Amino acid sequence: MNILITGSAGFIGSHLVERFLNEGHTVVGVDNYISGQKRNTEMFLGHPNFRFIRADVSSGIPYEGQPLDWVLHFASPASPPHYQQFPIETLMVGAQGTHHALELAHRHGARFMLASTSEVYGDPLVHPQPESYWGHVNPNGPRSCYDEAKRYAEALTMTYHRHKGVDTRIIRIFNTYGPRMRADDGRVVTNFVNQALEGKPLTVYGGQQTRSFQYVDDLVEGIVRLMGVTYHQPVNLGNPDEYTILDFARIIRDRTNPALEITFQSMPQDDPQQRRPDITVARNLLSWTPAVPLQEGLQRMVAASLHPTPPL
Amino acid sequence: MNILITGSAGFIGSHLVERFLNEGHTVVGVDNYISGQKRNTEMFLGHPNFRFIRADVSSGIPYEGQPLDWVLHFASPASPPHYQQFPIETLMVGAQGTHHALELAHRHGARFMLASTSEVYGDPLVHPQPESYWGHVNPNGPRSCYDEAKRYAEALTMTYHRHKGVDTRIIRIFNTYGPRMRADDGRVVTNFVNQALEGKPLTVYGGQQTRSFQYVDDLVEGIVRLMGVTYHQPVNLGNPDEYTILDFARIIRDRTNPALEITFQSMPQDDPQQRRPDITVARNLLSWTPAVPLQEGLQRMVAASLHPTPPL
Repeated sequence: MNILITGSAGFIGSHLVERFLNEGHTVVGVDNYISGQKRNTEMFLGHPNFRFIRADVSSGIPYEGQPLDWVLHFASPASPPHYQQFPIETLMVGAQGTHHALELAHRHGARFMLASTSEVYGDPLVHPQPESYWGHVNPNGPRSCYDEAKRYAEALTMTYHRHKGVDTRIIRIFNTYGPRMRADDGRVVTNFVNQALEGKPLTVYGGQQTRSFQYVDDLVEGIVRLMGVTYHQPVNLGNPDEYTILDFARIIRDRTNPALEITFQSMPQDDPQQRRPDITVARNLLSWTPAVPLQEGLQRMVAASLHPTPPL
Repeated sequence: MNILITGSAGFIGSHLVERFLNEGHTVVGVDNYISGQKRNTEMFLGHPNFRFIRADVSSGIPYEGQPLDWVLHFASPASPPHYQQFPIETLMVGAQGTHHALELAHRHGARFMLASTSEVYGDPLVHPQPESYWGHVNPNGPRSCYDEAKRYAEALTMTYHRHKGVDTRIIRIFNTYGPRMRADDGRVVTNFVNQALEGKPLTVYGGQQTRSFQYVDDLVEGIVRLMGVTYHQPVNLGNPDEYTILDFARIIRDRTNPALEITFQSMPQDDPQQRRPDITVARNLLSWTPAVPLQEGLQRMVAASLHPTPPL
């Protein structure tokens, strides 16, 4: 197949490129590097089935070539420090970027996937969150540039499905970790792993809020399975095993350096108190459950930080 | 002042044009007529201070001329039949249209107002709705093309305020009625007035859901007052006097033709059960309360339907 991935130089995008190349597909990656990393492109550039287009998908996707079978729209700043640094770009890629990606899929008759997020649930009042939960989001708070951009992207995607017949998929990605996350990602897993590898105290903001952590290979497996079935409503992909942020800091500490200190700071505004996926839909529809336990995933991530992946 | 209004040929836009021309301002109207009406432009074309640009603001606002003092972004299909007919255009004008309007305001150093909506509250679980309520909106249901477009527009507006310093205002408009509503508007007031004037039975969908109805002159007064103060958070503008749809049908019937029949049909999917503004902010900030009672407003609307407004 011929597969185009926006955000191909991002953390998740790069794992999708790798998976699809390994399966023998042709992959077109698109990124503008505002939060993606060039080394996530460079590692694939020698591959005969990989092609890269440097472009801001909010301005258009200048693809010319063979018909596309799949368009996967993963481009967006996704961590709070990045979308706070680029709030307008984040809003643009959710609206204009999604629009261009949907139009491309429509022109090619390609299957389309939107990478949405557990952030569409905001600070949820229902726990765990099934896909039918409408969420609890501040429409104009400091996080709204990301949350509302993704909700808008879902609405646009469903509208293209309903009114233009595009064969769409929507996934809501819960916290995901693994090799190739940016060191300055700002999210709790990378923060803790980086701090632990540097022998620094682990900084906990709040601590009692909970998160579920999914290893990236599990997410990629869920994406591949969902692309293979026909289902247009959103699907949660995440690991329901729940840890408080503080528990998580303790696990990282105990596995790297039991002598590390844990320090505490106050929670940022609008930070969700708890977030945990209800994965009943993915389980029933895709026979999918996360397979990589947290301890094993963290081992792999730490190992990859010490010995980066060689080129394909 | 030099004021640009997107959606100038819409119901509310046309009342704003009239008010600002009557106050001696210069007004630039912009509309593409997908839901606006040409006669709402034509009635002002003879006025020396009115200028019209026919354009789809989602593609850009081709304004060249004197610096603008205010940009009021009111363009959007706003009634369910219209945004269901134009769901993609509705999503576009909320994102790309708002973006172009904000960029225009930014370039001119103009004060900006976004016409948002009570629909950002969705099917509210809090009653009445204060501005601090985050709402209860289905992000990908059949109404999401409007609700999520407006929530996105609010997020974008606040982002332009926070990050580019644009002097923004956001109003959340609750149900408004008055002369120059489209006869095919599909909303309950026009439906009932039209049916009553035609001597037809009044069709009630559901009936026990409540609505508050604000006369358009009250809304315009609130808009003018808000533009005169410095306040960037959303402000509800609506009439908190609450009627069930069925009560409302009865009032219209009793004031036009007590012999009219009232017929019942089931509620559309996702139709809000109740919606009523908490106007504490507008009351305190603007010394504003709705002044036109429902009975009087309906009299004026019926009179205007029988004797359309002559040109200025």
